[in-house]
Amino acid sequence: MFAVEVRDHIMIGHSLPSPVFGPAQGMHGATFTVDAAFYTEDIDDHGLVVDIGLATEALTEVLAPLRYQNLDDVAEFKGKFTTTEFLCRHIFDGMAGFARSGRLNDGGRVKKLRIMLHESHVARAWYEGAI
Amino acid sequence: MFAVEVRDHIMIGHSLPSPVFGPAQGMHGATFTVDAAFYTEDIDDHGLVVDIGLATEALTEVLAPLRYQNLDDVAEFKGKFTTTEFLCRHIFDGMAGFARSGRLNDGGRVKKLRIMLHESHVARAWYEGAI
Amino acid sequence: MFAVEVRDHIMIGHSLPSPVFGPAQGMHGATFTVDAAFYTEDIDDHGLVVDIGLATEALTEVLAPLRYQNLDDVAEFKGKFTTTEFLCRHIFDGMAGFARSGRLNDGGRVKKLRIMLHESHVARAWYEGAI
Amino acid sequence: MFAVEVRDHIMIGHSLPSPVFGPAQGMHGATFTVDAAFYTEDIDDHGLVVDIGLATEALTEVLAPLRYQNLDDVAEFKGKFTTTEFLCRHIFDGMAGFARSGRLNDGGRVKKLRIMLHESHVARAWYEGAI
Amino acid sequence: MFAVEVRDHIMIGHSLPSPVFGPAQGMHGATFTVDAAFYTEDIDDHGLVVDIGLATEALTEVLAPLRYQNLDDVAEFKGKFTTTEFLCRHIFDGMAGFARSGRLNDGGRVKKLRIMLHESHVARAWYEGAI
Amino acid sequence: MFAVEVRDHIMIGHSLPSPVFGPAQGMHGATFTVDAAFYTEDIDDHGLVVDIGLATEALTEVLAPLRYQNLDDVAEFKGKFTTTEFLCRHIFDGMAGFARSGRLNDGGRVKKLRIMLHESHVARAWYEGAI
Repeated sequence: MFAVEVRDHIMIGHSLPSPVFGPAQGMHGATFTVDAAFYTEDIDDHGLVVDIGLATEALTEVLAPLRYQNLDDVAEFKGKFTTTEFLCRHIFDGMAGFARSGRLNDGGRVKKLRIMLHESHVARAWYEGAI
Repeated sequence: MFAVEVRDHIMIGHSLPSPVFGPAQGMHGATFTVDAAFYTEDIDDHGLVVDIGLATEALTEVLAPLRYQNLDDVAEFKGKFTTTEFLCRHIFDGMAGFARSGRLNDGGRVKKLRIMLHESHVARAWYEGAI
Repeated sequence: MFAVEVRDHIMIGHSLPSPVFGPAQGMHGATFTVDAAFYTEDIDDHGLVVDIGLATEALTEVLAPLRYQNLDDVAEFKGKFTTTEFLCRHIFDGMAGFARSGRLNDGGRVKKLRIMLHESHVARAWYEGAI
Repeated sequence: MFAVEVRDHIMIGHSLPSPVFGPAQGMHGATFTVDAAFYTEDIDDHGLVVDIGLATEALTEVLAPLRYQNLDDVAEFKGKFTTTEFLCRHIFDGMAGFARSGRLNDGGRVKKLRIMLHESHVARAWYEGAI
Repeated sequence: MFAVEVRDHIMIGHSLPSPVFGPAQGMHGATFTVDAAFYTEDIDDHGLVVDIGLATEALTEVLAPLRYQNLDDVAEFKGKFTTTEFLCRHIFDGMAGFARSGRLNDGGRVKKLRIMLHESHVARAWYEGAI
Repeated sequence: MFAVEVRDHIMIGHSLPSPVFGPAQGMHGATFTVDAAFYTEDIDDHGLVVDIGLATEALTEVLAPLRYQNLDDVAEFKGKFTTTEFLCRHIFDGMAGFARSGRLNDGGRVKKLRIMLHESHVARAWYEGAI
């Protein structure tokens, strides 16, 4: 199995309003370094898993609504805890939608994605799944 | 599949007394940067794979008996070669025990762990398995 | 000249309310990986620039009031733009105070500090100065 | 499952002569940091996945024909696009050949390899497969 | 003294036609991760060393003529050895010109720059100087 | 001012027999990632600070007597605390000797060195000085 992975980052604010989150209950924030990996069984005639320009464009587009946002104010996150894990899945869903739309121009070869968010130099989370 | 990974490190001494290990047969040592990844099928109602505080506490507790030790003097390692791979498995076993004890407070959702030890900027090892 | 550097991190929220900051004007946040370097002309009888335990304790203590905070609500930051550069200097001042208090137990040998904040994988800032 | 991974790097020149590659069509180049991971079900009597010296030797040997080369001049790459993905597979094939030759001295325990090429601080690719 | 540093990268081809360069005499290439640091004595009323957007724009503009190029074909490099050190200085000169033009909008506060090129995971070079 | 920096690593054992070192008093060890930086005022006719092959050879030679050693058994370290800072200076002295011997073939242009030892992902030390 082949994979190509590209990196970007976002800086967001949010609160995690439950005693479960201890000192992180109030408004604070994070820089998330975001790695998006695209998996295919084989490479195409140009030796590609996926066009890296389109892969980067997909990630830029999916991250745009989050960039410099207070996630507490994002309508679709109301009532949700915007943990690192939750955001991995949210970004996965956006990337999977982009892939299924055909805009990756991959002929449907991308079958799996992994979205990894590094929240600090000592903690990270990821979600991977079929699309 | 979701995962959360936390990082800590230990500094240990040991010898690897077999000709197989060439220049590393005598007493020397290593800094191991240790990454512990916890895998679940889904996130819980708080958007969590596992409470990151408890995950970190588990790793701290499992590493404590190794921290600043001469592994040649650790009773349970007598007659063993304490290679990076061996230590991955040893730490995995400790972490799996912690998880099975219920102290991760994860409702038994954590089904798999991966323990990765970076021994230098050019070499690392890991063990992953179901718990 | 000798130096020892230790690392910690904080996750904070803040806004940067001026058109100068473009998309970063509203409430958002950051993970700052913080490196604190201590400089001395020479090492002491134990071969130390500074006790690394005390150096780490100093950094933990100085970062504590910032950890998981909304910097817009921190009284001493009212009317200030809490940029990465500004925070470098703020943390420097706290660390310099710790050093001058004698609590580093360094016999006054630490003459200079550098505080570096990594705000993402592509941007960082630092402040260095005599204490 | 266990794994050991070793790292090396190569610096190569190449062109990617198709409009698909946009600004990268002409002669340019890359530093590839190369990670080679060896997977086994278990460790041997010496606590090893594989002798790390032999693993490193394998990687050095497989990378040698690429080191400081203009890949456009390498006979076996004629008519191929030497993308990062393509090179992952090429190096995988060389490493798999080394493993199958018995020169890893692993008793046939290494069943899977992963070859990862980091082409920049924001992009990487890998190929993994059974050998 | 304050500093802000931003990162970008370029992928180039070149040859180093002198026996001094041993195996690197022929056409090959490199990925250079480029860090540009801007130094000031103090921060401005917005808490800034320099607008990070303009700093990034400066680096993008200065790197543009090198991106995906065969440096052997760049007119101003004729008769030069385009070593990592040489390129540090070349990029420094471009960045210093940008700064002196007033386009950093820093009121002439930026007095020093450092340009660092990482050529691999084990080697890097830099040039720093007043502007 | 120009600089070139190369990286290597060593794995050593040692004890730090004084109550000052708390849990690190007994036999333990470390992986030290070692960065050696060479500074010159200008580059030579080949665009070099120093021949990177010779720089790497110097570092390899200076580190050789430490590699895989128990530093408690190294004669010249008797009665010394082999802290990270101490080792920075020890390696600096070896590198400075190499440089002064003329074996760097730099025409005496290298005027300053910096030796940095990373002892973990959260701590490092360095020594820099004129040669």
